[in-house]
Amino acid sequence: MFEPSVYIGRRRALVAALASRGARDGLVAFPGNNESPINYPDNAYRFRQDSCFLYYFGIAEPGLAATIDLGAGRATLYADGLTIDDLVWTGPRPGVDEYRALCGADAVEPRSAFGRDVAAARGRCLFTPPYRADSAIELGEALGMAPKDLAAAASGALIAAVVAQREIKEDRELADIERAVDVSIDMHRAVIAAARPGVTEAAMMAEAYRVAYSGGGMPAFPAIATTKGSVLHNHGYPGTLADGGLFLLDAGAETVNGYAGDLTSTFPIGARYDDRQRAVYDIVLRAGEACASMMAPGVPYRDCHLAAARAIAEGLRALGVMRGDPDEAVAAGAHACFFPHGVGHQMGLDVHDMENLGEVNVGYDGQPKSAEFGLKSLRLAKPLKAGMVLTIEPGVYFIEGLIAAWKAEKRHSSFIDYAEAEKWLPVGGVRASGAARAGSASRSTSP
Amino acid sequence: MFEPSVYIGRRRALVAALASRGARDGLVAFPGNNESPINYPDNAYRFRQDSCFLYYFGIAEPGLAATIDLGAGRATLYADGLTIDDLVWTGPRPGVDEYRALCGADAVEPRSAFGRDVAAARGRCLFTPPYRADSAIELGEALGMAPKDLAAAASGALIAAVVAQREIKEDRELADIERAVDVSIDMHRAVIAAARPGVTEAAMMAEAYRVAYSGGGMPAFPAIATTKGSVLHNHGYPGTLADGGLFLLDAGAETVNGYAGDLTSTFPIGARYDDRQRAVYDIVLRAGEACASMMAPGVPYRDCHLAAARAIAEGLRALGVMRGDPDEAVAAGAHACFFPHGVGHQMGLDVHDMENLGEVNVGYDGQPKSAEFGLKSLRLAKPLKAGMVLTIEPGVYFIEGLIAAWKAEKRHSSFIDYAEAEKWLPVGGVRASGAARAGSASRSTSP
Repeated sequence: MFEPSVYIGRRRALVAALASRGARDGLVAFPGNNESPINYPDNAYRFRQDSCFLYYFGIAEPGLAATIDLGAGRATLYADGLTIDDLVWTGPRPGVDEYRALCGADAVEPRSAFGRDVAAARGRCLFTPPYRADSAIELGEALGMAPKDLAAAASGALIAAVVAQREIKEDRELADIERAVDVSIDMHRAVIAAARPGVTEAAMMAEAYRVAYSGGGMPAFPAIATTKGSVLHNHGYPGTLADGGLFLLDAGAETVNGYAGDLTSTFPIGARYDDRQRAVYDIVLRAGEACASMMAPGVPYRDCHLAAARAIAEGLRALGVMRGDPDEAVAAGAHACFFPHGVGHQMGLDVHDMENLGEVNVGYDGQPKSAEFGLKSLRLAKPLKAGMVLTIEPGVYFIEGLIAAWKAEKRHSSFIDYAEAEKWLPVGGVRASGAARAGSASRSTSP
Repeated sequence: MFEPSVYIGRRRALVAALASRGARDGLVAFPGNNESPINYPDNAYRFRQDSCFLYYFGIAEPGLAATIDLGAGRATLYADGLTIDDLVWTGPRPGVDEYRALCGADAVEPRSAFGRDVAAARGRCLFTPPYRADSAIELGEALGMAPKDLAAAASGALIAAVVAQREIKEDRELADIERAVDVSIDMHRAVIAAARPGVTEAAMMAEAYRVAYSGGGMPAFPAIATTKGSVLHNHGYPGTLADGGLFLLDAGAETVNGYAGDLTSTFPIGARYDDRQRAVYDIVLRAGEACASMMAPGVPYRDCHLAAARAIAEGLRALGVMRGDPDEAVAAGAHACFFPHGVGHQMGLDVHDMENLGEVNVGYDGQPKSAEFGLKSLRLAKPLKAGMVLTIEPGVYFIEGLIAAWKAEKRHSSFIDYAEAEKWLPVGGVRASGAARAGSASRSTSP
C-alpha cells in the first residue's frame, strides 16, 4: 500500500467533492470485502479487497470496514484484534492500532460497530452498489432494507464523486499500472513461447497464471486462452492446440496494490499466419491504429470506437465480406456482426475500472447507453480526459451462430455478403489490444 | 461428469435413506452455485459448483438449481436457455433439454421456478446449510427467513443421509481421487524442483498452481507455500527462499470432476536438512506411521490422532523439549503446544469433505467435539468405515507466540521445558502428509 498521507488526501478530496455536490452531512459506508467461499466457509478464493476500500483505506485484508463522517470529516476503521487461535493459524499480523495508522484513519472501532454506526445513520448513509451478497446482507440489515433493494438506494452523489476522482490516475497509480502491464506482457510472452501443437488450452492458461502469481499479485480477471477466438469470453479450457490454428490469449495481471493489466494477443500456433488469418489480423491492427489516432482529451471515446468500426467495415469490404459505404454500414450497425463488442474500457484498480458503480455512471456521464447490438457493449463512450487509462482492443470474429441468425433474417444484407462471410469461418476470431493513457504513447502486445 | 445413471442412482439412494429416516414427503432443495464476484459482478472467480449439487446432479455450470420431490421421487432441474448474447459472449453450450438428459432429471423448468417451488414447499423443504450468501438470500426469500437463520433451519435428516452416502466412496470416485492425488504429487515435485535460494514464495505457489491448472482442474484449496512453516495456514506469499531454511508446501489439485487431493511436504531449501530439522522431520514421519498403523474399519480416528500425538510427545521428550510420561502429556493436552491441529480429515468432492454440513455431523456422528486446544481442531474423530478417504498430516511446530503465551502462564510446565523449546524456534514447522483410504495402502509425499 501507499503512505498513510495518500489515503488521508484521497478521503479529504472525496469529502470536499461531496460537499460541493451538496452532501455536507451523512456517513459514507465502505464495507470491506470478506473471504469468498469456494465450496465451504473455510475454503476461500484468493482474497480481493473491494476497490473503493483499497482506494480510500488501502488495507488488503478481509474482515474490515470503514466509514467517513462527512460532517466531522472523520474516518473510522472497523477491525478486530488478534486471538491466540489467529496467531497459531494465520500468524502474526498488525494489531488494530497499526491498521489505523497504516490508513491514517482517525479512529478504530471493533468490526461489529460498523453495523451499529450504519444503522444510526439511516436516511443519511451513502454507499456504492454492493456486488457481494454478504456485504449486501450486512448493509441491508443495518439499514432495514432487503439486499436486492440496495443497488437502487446507492448514492448518486457518492458514485459521481468517486468516478471523477478515481478515473484521473495519480502518478503513483500510473507507475503501478505500468508494472501490471509489464507482468501482463510477460504472461503473453510466456504463453506464446509455450505454444505448439498438442499443448492443451489448460496448460496455456496455467502458464499465464504462473507468471501473474509469480509477480506477487494475481490474474486480474479469468484468462481467455482459447483456440476458438470466435467465442468472445470463452472461460473454459477444454481444447488442444493444433497446427494451422490461431490461439487467442486475453489475460492480464494485477499487482500487489491491486492495479490491473489487460492485454489480448492472437497468434498462429504453427510457424506463421495463413493468408486469411493475416488479412484479418491486419484489419484488427488497422482498427486499433484508427482508434488510437483519434484519442485525445475531449474526444468522445464513442468516436474512437466508431473509427475502429469503420476501419473494420472498410477492411472487410476489401475482402468481399462486407459491401456498400463503410460509413453507412457502421451507422446502420452492420459491422457488429463481426465486431460485436466495444473497443475498450477504463482500467485501474478494476480491470473494467469501477464497473460496479454502473457503466452508465463510469463511461457515459450518466447518459443512456445505446441499445444497438454491438454499441450496447461499449463500456466507455464519454469524452476522454487527461489522466485516464483505457484499453484499445478491437477484434474481428466469424461467429457461426451469429452469422446464421442474421443471415436467416436477412439483416443488413445490403452491407453483408453472408455467403462470403461463411468462407471465413475457419479463421474464427482475432483480437489484439494495448493499454493507453490519454495523451501518451500506447503499449501493445502486437508484434 | 459421470453417466446419467450414476446421478439417478444416487438420488434414488438418497430418497430411500430419507424415507428410512422418516422423511417420506417434502422437497429437497439444491441451489447450485452462481458465479462469485471478485471486484464487480462480471469479474468472477473460477466457477466451482456446489459439491452436493455435483454429487446428485453432476453439472458444473453456474446458474442452475434442482429439487427432489420425495413423495413423487421426482427430480427437477432448473435452467435457462441460451440467448443470442450468450451465444456470442460465452459460446454454444448445451440447451436445457440436454442438461436434463445429462443428469437424468425427470423434468426441467426455468431457473426462476426454483424459488416458486421452494416457496410452495415451506415447512417441508429440506436443505443443507448454505455457505454462499447469494444462495442464502434466495433460499431465505423463498422460505420467508433471514439469511442468517437458514443454517439453524437446515435438515438434520438430510445432512445425516448425505454424509452417510458421500463418505463411502464409489470406485469411480476413488479413481478420480487417485487422479487428483497424482496431479497433487506432480505439484509437489515441480515445486521441489524449483526450490533454490532467491526464489520467491510467490513463484513457488505459482509453480504449484501451474501444475494444478494444467491438469484441467484447479487448486483444491489456497496453497500454503511458505518459508515459515510455523504459521499453520499462512496464505500470503511475501517471503524469499534462503539457504538453510525449510520450505513447507501444503497444496493439492482438484480434478475436472471436482475431486480433491491434499498433500503437504516440508523440505530443505539447501542441499540437506540440518540436524535439528532432520530430528523434527523424523518425529513427524513417526507420527504419521503411528497414525497409519492404527487405521482400520471400526477404529475411531480420534485414537489414530492420539497415536500421532503420543509419537510426537515421545519424540520431543527424546529431544528434551517435553518431559514426563508421554501418555500423561497427551492426556493433559501438553503436546498441542507443538501439534496444535488434528491429524487429518475426510477428502472427496471437498478437500475437507462435506465440511459445510458441519464438522460434528461429518466427523463426530453428531457428538460434541472436545473444547481442548489442539483436539478441538480435529475434524474427524468417529470410527472409520471401509470406503472412507482421509488424510494423515501430522506436524511439529515451534510457534513463537504460542510458546511465549504458554510459558508465561506456566501451562503444562511439568511436561514442557520451555527454555529448551525456544532453542528449536529456528526449525519453524514441519508437516508431512499422505492421503489414505481406510483398508488400503496410503500414498504419501514423504521421500
